[in-house]
Amino acid sequence: MRQHNMALCKEHYLEWVPVQTARFIKKYEMFTPEEKILVAVSGGKDSLSLWDILQRLGYKADGLYICLGIDEGIHYSAESQHMAENFANERGLKLHVVDIQKEYKEAIPALTLKSRRGRGKDCSICGLVKRHEMNRIARDFGYDVLATGHNLDDEAAILFGNTLIWAGEYLLRQGPVLSEKPGLARKVKPLCRFYEREMLAYALLRGIEYIYDECPLSVGSTSIYYKEMLNRIENDRPGAKLTFYINFLEARKNGLFTDREEIQAELHPCPICGQPTSAASICSFCRMVKK
Amino acid sequence: MRQHNMALCKEHYLEWVPVQTARFIKKYEMFTPEEKILVAVSGGKDSLSLWDILQRLGYKADGLYICLGIDEGIHYSAESQHMAENFANERGLKLHVVDIQKEYKEAIPALTLKSRRGRGKDCSICGLVKRHEMNRIARDFGYDVLATGHNLDDEAAILFGNTLIWAGEYLLRQGPVLSEKPGLARKVKPLCRFYEREMLAYALLRGIEYIYDECPLSVGSTSIYYKEMLNRIENDRPGAKLTFYINFLEARKNGLFTDREEIQAELHPCPICGQPTSAASICSFCRMVKK
Repeated sequence: MRQHNMALCKEHYLEWVPVQTARFIKKYEMFTPEEKILVAVSGGKDSLSLWDILQRLGYKADGLYICLGIDEGIHYSAESQHMAENFANERGLKLHVVDIQKEYKEAIPALTLKSRRGRGKDCSICGLVKRHEMNRIARDFGYDVLATGHNLDDEAAILFGNTLIWAGEYLLRQGPVLSEKPGLARKVKPLCRFYEREMLAYALLRGIEYIYDECPLSVGSTSIYYKEMLNRIENDRPGAKLTFYINFLEARKNGLFTDREEIQAELHPCPICGQPTSAASICSFCRMVKK
Repeated sequence: MRQHNMALCKEHYLEWVPVQTARFIKKYEMFTPEEKILVAVSGGKDSLSLWDILQRLGYKADGLYICLGIDEGIHYSAESQHMAENFANERGLKLHVVDIQKEYKEAIPALTLKSRRGRGKDCSICGLVKRHEMNRIARDFGYDVLATGHNLDDEAAILFGNTLIWAGEYLLRQGPVLSEKPGLARKVKPLCRFYEREMLAYALLRGIEYIYDECPLSVGSTSIYYKEMLNRIENDRPGAKLTFYINFLEARKNGLFTDREEIQAELHPCPICGQPTSAASICSFCRMVKK
């Protein structure tokens, strides 16, 4: 690991990852051992590894799989669900499954076709659906906190995209913890300081079976583009990606940004689903589903 | 010009550039027609074009050429000086010339070798020397304002570098205008919203003779690296570079960043040269020259 100037054997690596995760959970005050955690699992390496790590650290964590109905000739969603269910069954863990098609009559491919927002931006629609459903399940089943498997590459790419256009509202908010608000579950990202290849190594060394394919709808997405740019910079300057993300969090903590409230959008409950929204009337999710 | 969705013929282009420059000078409150301007000219296309534009707009602008003593087998400094002097002579303009070797016994190549800061970072030493000397001449000769030819590519690259490490102090300060402070001349960048290739087109179409070579010591510098990264992004998303810079200025104006003073370094006069410095005792320039 050039960025840490460190090399570990398999045994020590598999110890190091949970120890580091525990350190991040504590540092960013994500949750306590008493709290009930809902882990959003996609069937990929990051979220299944996160669930595995939380188990190993002794946390009470159930899973949530959201079936997005993406096939594209490779049975992407079916295969992912299979991986998530296998993981849960083998370990006797509880997994909630939500099927978007069953709940809302249409799955992601149809929803993206309908939405203006979706034209060429499938990931944006899919993200909206996932955020809405994760929050709904976390709230309905009384979980204290919702954990996602975002790794450093994910987080740095989001930050990079927001920084290139100086999207103030997002810069003030993005981070390892999104605090609880009325109607919004606390959201945490315990893997946010691990490089993607660190999580890949963890999943492989732990023998976790996960879906290798990237989502077929994400080809050409902005997040993949920003990841590639950051990978080039990281390649030329090892550690640059971590520095970019960590220094951002530190600079914000140390008061680089405004603490004025007016830049942050006001939230009110959506009259249909009851989830908080910054839109004038019904939330973007309900607007999309209504169409 | 893909970023403006606009194409101009030679005649209109040569009109458009000064009109835009005048707009930026007014928008960012750089200077008034009564003020005495010192233009830092390197002999390159940007600074000579700036001087040309300011003349065409009717401003009172003298030039300053700083001879850095860089040869590297291509007579870089001698050639640049020749270009700057030719430009001034042909137009009957006043040009101050400062020779670093004569003033401080050693030119840039020797100074960078001596300084720890300089190892592999020649541009940082050279920048320090130029800032010091520009400010000295502006102050000693009573100029109201110091103008440099930084274009959008320069400014975006500096911003990009500062953003990748979230260098708070620099982010709070970087911009088209650095206000006057006791001992520090006001510094302005009237070309900060022109792409490099826009300035290239202006210089060529106006028939300005300038030095084509890049500084031979700048090969492999961080600023060139960041320019290349931004050019890739610009190539994929026309206008991205301008958006990155303009949105930053807008976001800061709209209060994204803190207005607390403590993040900004305190300045006091250097006991040797009298120029303001944030260092504990003598300024970095005098420390380097003393060695």
